[in-house]
Amino acid sequence: MTTPEQAEHLQRYAELAVQLGANVQPGQLVEVSARSLDNAPLARAVARAAYAAGARYVDVRYHDVHVRRALIERGPDAALSWTPPWLLSRERKLSAEGAAIVAINGDGDADILADLPGERVGRARMRELAEESRDSMNRQRNNWTVIACPTAGWANRIFGEPDLDRLWEAILSCVRLDEPDPVAAWQRHADRLDRRVEALDALRFDRLHFSGGGTDLTVGLLPESRWLGARSKRFDGLEHIANMPTEEVFTTPDARRTEGVVRATRPLPVAGRLVEGLELRFAAGRIVDVQADAGADVVRGQLASDERASYLGEIALVDGTSRVGRTGLTFLDGLLDENAACHLAYGACYTECLEGRELVEGANDSFVHTDVMIGGPDVAVDGVTAEGTVVPLLRDAVWQLPE
Amino acid sequence: MTTPEQAEHLQRYAELAVQLGANVQPGQLVEVSARSLDNAPLARAVARAAYAAGARYVDVRYHDVHVRRALIERGPDAALSWTPPWLLSRERKLSAEGAAIVAINGDGDADILADLPGERVGRARMRELAEESRDSMNRQRNNWTVIACPTAGWANRIFGEPDLDRLWEAILSCVRLDEPDPVAAWQRHADRLDRRVEALDALRFDRLHFSGGGTDLTVGLLPESRWLGARSKRFDGLEHIANMPTEEVFTTPDARRTEGVVRATRPLPVAGRLVEGLELRFAAGRIVDVQADAGADVVRGQLASDERASYLGEIALVDGTSRVGRTGLTFLDGLLDENAACHLAYGACYTECLEGRELVEGANDSFVHTDVMIGGPDVAVDGVTAEGTVVPLLRDAVWQLPE
Repeated sequence: MTTPEQAEHLQRYAELAVQLGANVQPGQLVEVSARSLDNAPLARAVARAAYAAGARYVDVRYHDVHVRRALIERGPDAALSWTPPWLLSRERKLSAEGAAIVAINGDGDADILADLPGERVGRARMRELAEESRDSMNRQRNNWTVIACPTAGWANRIFGEPDLDRLWEAILSCVRLDEPDPVAAWQRHADRLDRRVEALDALRFDRLHFSGGGTDLTVGLLPESRWLGARSKRFDGLEHIANMPTEEVFTTPDARRTEGVVRATRPLPVAGRLVEGLELRFAAGRIVDVQADAGADVVRGQLASDERASYLGEIALVDGTSRVGRTGLTFLDGLLDENAACHLAYGACYTECLEGRELVEGANDSFVHTDVMIGGPDVAVDGVTAEGTVVPLLRDAVWQLPE
Repeated sequence: MTTPEQAEHLQRYAELAVQLGANVQPGQLVEVSARSLDNAPLARAVARAAYAAGARYVDVRYHDVHVRRALIERGPDAALSWTPPWLLSRERKLSAEGAAIVAINGDGDADILADLPGERVGRARMRELAEESRDSMNRQRNNWTVIACPTAGWANRIFGEPDLDRLWEAILSCVRLDEPDPVAAWQRHADRLDRRVEALDALRFDRLHFSGGGTDLTVGLLPESRWLGARSKRFDGLEHIANMPTEEVFTTPDARRTEGVVRATRPLPVAGRLVEGLELRFAAGRIVDVQADAGADVVRGQLASDERASYLGEIALVDGTSRVGRTGLTFLDGLLDENAACHLAYGACYTECLEGRELVEGANDSFVHTDVMIGGPDVAVDGVTAEGTVVPLLRDAVWQLPE
């Protein structure tokens, strides 16, 4: 049962996602993608908010990890990566139309695949669809946002009890719905991240260096690498906020120049499994060794599914004063956790983080993109210029540049 | 929470639907269409059973009446009947492949649209998709079955309390899963309906006459009208059982020759609304007057949505000794209730009930097909030959022909 307070939260979050996040325009086709049936209350609220914003049509698609489990457990091999042609046709239509997209995370069943062979779990991904959607992403075809639906199951995974109100309280704070004027608060927040972006772009680092807590990682940057904050732009300049919450500034690294070892600082849900104690070793840009206390096979399965999956696609800086960080929670959800700590992603880059917004040599292209949290109070982050000047960026998870 | 007993019921019903109902063949593409998110437990069980039967891929699509409500309430006019092109592409693929289809009924939210304008509710139907799927149906492209998922919400609508176990008990009996050997029981049952079919085909009635309880209706038949029982055939002869439960024998009437007045003997869920006390008046085959205690506007909206919707497409005979009838329940669900009582459907005919299995003059074509229960102990049914010989078919809801 949804309480009246929760119904109000749903409506306010949905309106924020539609108006400020995806920035739905009158007459637009709107796609709502719910990761779980449990996300239905927010998916429905988004549909209502999108029609209120003038959407031409709202399509809601529910994913069901239990059906996926049946596929992985019992389906033929060829089915694992098959894309039903109508889903491809749908993706192309959304791309051609420049549709608005609201993706909803928040899954109480995220560990439902935990006992299945990691190799099959890793391979179970619609390959053609992933390529098509990477292509849409690279061409900035859509105004989109990712939000997270508090559910009792998700609350249970975090707190050990299905305390939905407590999870709502945390999420409302993360997405600034606890502010008297959330839209104004978001504008201030996005402005602040924009100032970080400007500072980083001005410093033109050759590489970043992460050290401490078992991590000693150098991430090379490209001459074309540009930083991005909360604000994204569709191909035609239409602004949207791609993640709500978001606390990161991020860029596209030189995929050929990652070296060293990095430890994940948070458990990582991948393809329905929880990867714990992940350690990745890079040489000449490539992940050459994967170790973990649990779930290493899922990561290895993902990396094996595409030859470019083992290269870095994104590096993101997040300080510990972020709204998400301040909750003190590990959400076991990528959207939230990646906004509490610095992270990297293996797989595809965002071409939006490249000057010219097009793929260049050294920027990675893949149909995988998995975020791994690597930051925390123990991990110092420096920027290093081509001349060897070292500029501290994060110490004790505190932002070091003026802003 | 699903109890272990309910989990076993789900598995057995799913296996029956896959193996005997849709008769899924190894290598087949299987489409599962769930009318509500609440049907997820059975949809997942069907997915597992279908893969176990050798399905090449199982696609599960969840409908959400709350999203539909948002569309009807807030969407632009043109959106009401729009078909997203990818759904059309999906339907065409399923048709071209001769896919297996399992449709799942059973909706606790069936009255969620009750307070919306009936005219918009009636018009809210994907028109192109309905035409495409009628075309698939007319060409018998798929091996399919319709089943019903017991849910707490549905139980609540029937019993006034969410007694899911009680609803399961009723459904298990209706679909013969209370028998020691359900498959053998289904074969005996289908054989019995086949004997009724043979008897009716042999008598070659010119028309049927329904009288009593406010009904006085004559339904003309075509020279090509053929009766069907539980067993249907795909275009290539592959047998399937299209409804589980099914208790009816049915045929395609002469759409030009329905005359008189008929009263619905059960409340009728149409497009998310409950129509009560429906009375239809026919003249020269056409519904010329719609009256009801509640919901007449939804029926009128449906009839107005297509010029052939007002003509008869199906007439079905069900006796009161049916498994469904014997539960003594009104299920408020078409699949169940139509198998407790004789019914008619306005809208599209089944070409499978025509000699030659193709549309002929006088057989109705529409993209609407709505079943209305018109039988009961008070309604006598006679067959009348071209020569005027009157043969009693049902008295006090008891079958009158030898079988």
